[in-house]
Amino acid sequence: MSGKDTTFQVGGRAVLEHLVKHGFRGRIDMVTRSPITLHGITSVTSLADLPTAPECVVLSIPAAQVPDTVQQALDMGIRAFVTISAGFSEAGAEGAALQERLVGMLRDHGAVMLGPNTTGLINFGRDTALSSTSRLATHSAPRGDIGVVVQSGALGSLLMDVAERDQIGMSYLISTGNEAVTDIADCVDFLIDDPETRSIALYVEAFRHPKRIVAAARRAFASGKPIAIYKAGRSDTGAAAAAGHTGALLGARSTYEAAARQLGLTDVKNIEDLLPVAHYLAHAGGGRSVGVLTVSGGLGGCLADALAHAGDVDLPNPGAAVSQQLQQYLPDFLKPKNPVDVGGSPFREQGGFSQCLGSFASDPAFEAVAVANTPVVPTWAQDSVDAISRVEAETGKPIVALWPSDIYNAEALRDLRVAGKTVFTRIDTAVAALNGKAAYLKCQDRPSSILDAGPLPLSYPQLGQSGLHSLDEASSKKRLQDLGIPFTKETFVIASNRDTALAQARVVGYPVTVKGIAEGVVHKSEYGLVAVGVADEPALTAVLDEMQRSAGAHRLDLRGFILAETLRAEAEVFVSVSYDREFGPSLTLGSGGIYTEVFKDVTTRLLPLARGEITNMIDDCKIGKILRGARGKAALDIEALTGLIEKLADLGGKLSADFAGLEINPVGVGAAGQGAWIFDATVFSAGGKDV
Amino acid sequence: MSGKDTTFQVGGRAVLEHLVKHGFRGRIDMVTRSPITLHGITSVTSLADLPTAPECVVLSIPAAQVPDTVQQALDMGIRAFVTISAGFSEAGAEGAALQERLVGMLRDHGAVMLGPNTTGLINFGRDTALSSTSRLATHSAPRGDIGVVVQSGALGSLLMDVAERDQIGMSYLISTGNEAVTDIADCVDFLIDDPETRSIALYVEAFRHPKRIVAAARRAFASGKPIAIYKAGRSDTGAAAAAGHTGALLGARSTYEAAARQLGLTDVKNIEDLLPVAHYLAHAGGGRSVGVLTVSGGLGGCLADALAHAGDVDLPNPGAAVSQQLQQYLPDFLKPKNPVDVGGSPFREQGGFSQCLGSFASDPAFEAVAVANTPVVPTWAQDSVDAISRVEAETGKPIVALWPSDIYNAEALRDLRVAGKTVFTRIDTAVAALNGKAAYLKCQDRPSSILDAGPLPLSYPQLGQSGLHSLDEASSKKRLQDLGIPFTKETFVIASNRDTALAQARVVGYPVTVKGIAEGVVHKSEYGLVAVGVADEPALTAVLDEMQRSAGAHRLDLRGFILAETLRAEAEVFVSVSYDREFGPSLTLGSGGIYTEVFKDVTTRLLPLARGEITNMIDDCKIGKILRGARGKAALDIEALTGLIEKLADLGGKLSADFAGLEINPVGVGAAGQGAWIFDATVFSAGGKDV
Repeated sequence: MSGKDTTFQVGGRAVLEHLVKHGFRGRIDMVTRSPITLHGITSVTSLADLPTAPECVVLSIPAAQVPDTVQQALDMGIRAFVTISAGFSEAGAEGAALQERLVGMLRDHGAVMLGPNTTGLINFGRDTALSSTSRLATHSAPRGDIGVVVQSGALGSLLMDVAERDQIGMSYLISTGNEAVTDIADCVDFLIDDPETRSIALYVEAFRHPKRIVAAARRAFASGKPIAIYKAGRSDTGAAAAAGHTGALLGARSTYEAAARQLGLTDVKNIEDLLPVAHYLAHAGGGRSVGVLTVSGGLGGCLADALAHAGDVDLPNPGAAVSQQLQQYLPDFLKPKNPVDVGGSPFREQGGFSQCLGSFASDPAFEAVAVANTPVVPTWAQDSVDAISRVEAETGKPIVALWPSDIYNAEALRDLRVAGKTVFTRIDTAVAALNGKAAYLKCQDRPSSILDAGPLPLSYPQLGQSGLHSLDEASSKKRLQDLGIPFTKETFVIASNRDTALAQARVVGYPVTVKGIAEGVVHKSEYGLVAVGVADEPALTAVLDEMQRSAGAHRLDLRGFILAETLRAEAEVFVSVSYDREFGPSLTLGSGGIYTEVFKDVTTRLLPLARGEITNMIDDCKIGKILRGARGKAALDIEALTGLIEKLADLGGKLSADFAGLEINPVGVGAAGQGAWIFDATVFSAGGKDV
Repeated sequence: MSGKDTTFQVGGRAVLEHLVKHGFRGRIDMVTRSPITLHGITSVTSLADLPTAPECVVLSIPAAQVPDTVQQALDMGIRAFVTISAGFSEAGAEGAALQERLVGMLRDHGAVMLGPNTTGLINFGRDTALSSTSRLATHSAPRGDIGVVVQSGALGSLLMDVAERDQIGMSYLISTGNEAVTDIADCVDFLIDDPETRSIALYVEAFRHPKRIVAAARRAFASGKPIAIYKAGRSDTGAAAAAGHTGALLGARSTYEAAARQLGLTDVKNIEDLLPVAHYLAHAGGGRSVGVLTVSGGLGGCLADALAHAGDVDLPNPGAAVSQQLQQYLPDFLKPKNPVDVGGSPFREQGGFSQCLGSFASDPAFEAVAVANTPVVPTWAQDSVDAISRVEAETGKPIVALWPSDIYNAEALRDLRVAGKTVFTRIDTAVAALNGKAAYLKCQDRPSSILDAGPLPLSYPQLGQSGLHSLDEASSKKRLQDLGIPFTKETFVIASNRDTALAQARVVGYPVTVKGIAEGVVHKSEYGLVAVGVADEPALTAVLDEMQRSAGAHRLDLRGFILAETLRAEAEVFVSVSYDREFGPSLTLGSGGIYTEVFKDVTTRLLPLARGEITNMIDDCKIGKILRGARGKAALDIEALTGLIEKLADLGGKLSADFAGLEINPVGVGAAGQGAWIFDATVFSAGGKDV
């Protein structure tokens, strides 16, 4: 339905045109301000005048009129809306209030709505173009099996252009708009249940509901439907997504990239590659190992090299039997390898290339094969098309083409695409797809804990709306001890009680480590408030005097001293548990001590984590080399460190406004058998309280 | 000329067909084994039978016959050859010997030759298609101003396909083949002097002559002709290019990327983007700062974000005057920024988009403007084309389009391209071009020393053919002292002379630092051969005993001890001078001590280096933050470190077989005013000698 006729031209009228043009088979009614007739349909001027209540209402009317109209529709029993109208949360405070009102009404009735501020959705399988996007005017691509969800209607148009150019078929294209009620996770859930959809492609600006996207990703994984994502935003503004100090250490995309890998999602770096990658992900067959066969050593080498760099695809050499068969196409002084450059010789006899490719692809070392062609003469191009189709059918393995020849071999590329084969015209597109599929298959082989466990055991509090507040060291440690995290032998004494300090130092034992606790000070060493391994009582007296003096000089309120046993750490690590606004609870591990900010050597994972995943995290960090024993030194106590991280990872389930995150820096790691100890920790609370 | 007729089909005959088809205006002669007539030309069977000596001979005959034929041509006074024939250095030892023979003959006569094993060259301006590449059969693109040189004929065909698709004009396309005589640097030199060529594009697998490519790059820079390079090879096999241990620290592409930046070359990460980038580089006008104007917040945001990530383009906000003009296209609650999303409103009135773009582009804050369009209705597309052409003409600034709409807006894209405008259909292509141009312009503003200095003062020895050999510490230090590098106060005593050791320790002064020198040991700490700050004579005696014992246990030949003053370094850095096989002398700086291999925090530059460039290197390294004073600590003695690095950089001119490189690890850096000292150094020699 539509308001002013001018609005109807670009919004409602466009939807009507697209429905008719693309052959919608159901009933269409129009509601307009004044009656008009289009495509044989005469409009009414009120929903109430419709002969029957429609299944779905598309709204393209002024924002202010939307709530009343929706209420009217809800009263008629309508529960599905597509609201193209803009002027809601994207348009300032007034629009946001309007949207809130709408959300309340829809929630009360259990209704769903795309938008507001959406271009709508297209169900390609049922010829239902419920969308205002002008790109539909000439769209011509086969129906297909990729379900696409976008958080920008304009980028949906871009994807339609790619789909038409590469003849890639979609099942759905859904633009979510403001996501007032129905969000991207709901759409993913819907596509998981859609029998036409074999893979899912997402353009995402922000995930709004951590628990729901994680749950949807788990369902998609369990159902065997791969998801490819292009995630907008690489700049550091996004770094604020992770709570506290950890955000700055991680940089903008680390948590997203970790999440994608753990959840079996394929991160696509270029929006233009999203559909080709999703298309290949939907392809049956394996792809952990790929054989590259090429007519150009240059192109094959660039592809293999980029694949090796991406890291998830194995590139084994062909076995002895296949090598022997391939040798006839190579000069004697060259042995077949991967990539194998066969040059032009297989094309010299009829069916030669097909035989050559068939031999190569039959090698059990390869789960998939890439044929890398530069522009070749038309007869070779035809031989390549025939060979790819035949060998894929014979071997059941994906045989993909990297063929950057949009113009010269346009016909061959079209033939392959129409036959449903995968063709890439850029090296990086091929690498994104092949590497993405290999990573997905490996994830299927060994799912992460977050995919593998039962119901999600973690709490997903609504955090991150207000700032975080750090508790002081003593309060932080107390909180952690209450949560069951062990500490070194230490004691707190108030600053004025010098005798107690000396007595407690004898209990802890010399050499003793002293830390001054002052209101608001997180980095104590900057204020001279840390002394490690103080040898005896006279030395301790001098240290306490000096800390008093330094605190005074910095106008700090020195509350007291922590006296702790002096442990000899061979390495220092950083561990934090924090809440990511897009993905929920996460754990970060890295180099600790004074080098934390300098080297930013950190890795992060969503929680929960199994022991083996913690081991992988250790090895992902550069400090992991020190922990495993660098330059001939013995390995440190990785077992104790892993045990401590396991305990901390379990805290992910206890995140709340009171315990919004924690940072431990450093954790000291001793020699093998000597243990790992928390030296210093900060707990964060959300919501303005500083307990 | 050609051998067997079958060979002639793919080699010589193809050249003839292409010369004729593309309208070569000069005389063509054929020499074949038996006489034939093609295109009205009847062949002769020997060069000697030609009526006049041609300017250039194209050879497509069996490899074994090439040397005699070339000799015959040289005797006739012919000095230019294109040798398509394969079977030379690429084909094993016999072919390599044949090629060596050819090189000798050509050098003796001062002749030039493309190849052997080349597809030839195309001079588009003179319709001279002296090439066997089959892609020429249908090539149709405008003549242009990009000179292209490739080390793979097949990838040359790929570039022709891109050129035709994007209607980008080339001046030359030259395939260098085996580069027996004429190499890529010669071709660059030629294109610098070619008046038709405005920018140069290179596909490179390996640079073979460091001094020549550096010299060519300098000439290109001085002549204002930008060079874009796609460099094959990202895997770690390439890491061996840098001498010694430094290579492993740097990884495969670091030296290349540093060299590209210093030499003002634009590194293009995707071969498919090489021509679009080179095309934009040839464009007149600036581009240090770019304004992004878009109809889609999504696309504009992705572009601006990717540009910010690439780092060389500034994205200033529009000024107050222009903002006011733009406000009419935006809702009141939005302020114009960069990128500015104007949505559809400027298209609502005739000429509106042109006015809007004109206002935006007139802002002095922008040296160039990018219009980011998703697929738009044909009328908007036409308005965009008109606006881009008009505003570019009016402002004299490059107005480029990012317009991923190959299909829906194909006509508009073609119109822009035919008019010589720059159109990108992928975000990453746009970013490569815009960022590349900004970096090039900044390099023009502040050329590096290697571009700015007079004649290249450095030696470029022929190193890297054989392995490197490390000298022991004492020999290394002596060599460095001979070269004028200062050391800390220290002395060497032979292992058996215990009394001398104790006496010398008193001269150096306690606390003394002791290092055991054993044959073949580089990393002394792994064998217990380093003791820092030994307090007094009894402790020293114990240390010397323990080193003797440890050396015995490891079956090491302990030659003696170095006794040195104990200096208190606040940070440790790594410095090396090495010879890169592709680019020559270079210096690497990074984190030193036991963390060198762990963090691989290094940066590298070609030599020579000015003082300001050394400062930049320090700030490029993470250890630079420590040197400048991390977490509230005072800055260290950067001046002393810079002075030491300057001295070491000067050694780049003294590299030779005897002094093939050096690694200093660590250089200790003291507090401000305390200095910087070489603690340990290794000098390398090449050629199997261990002095």
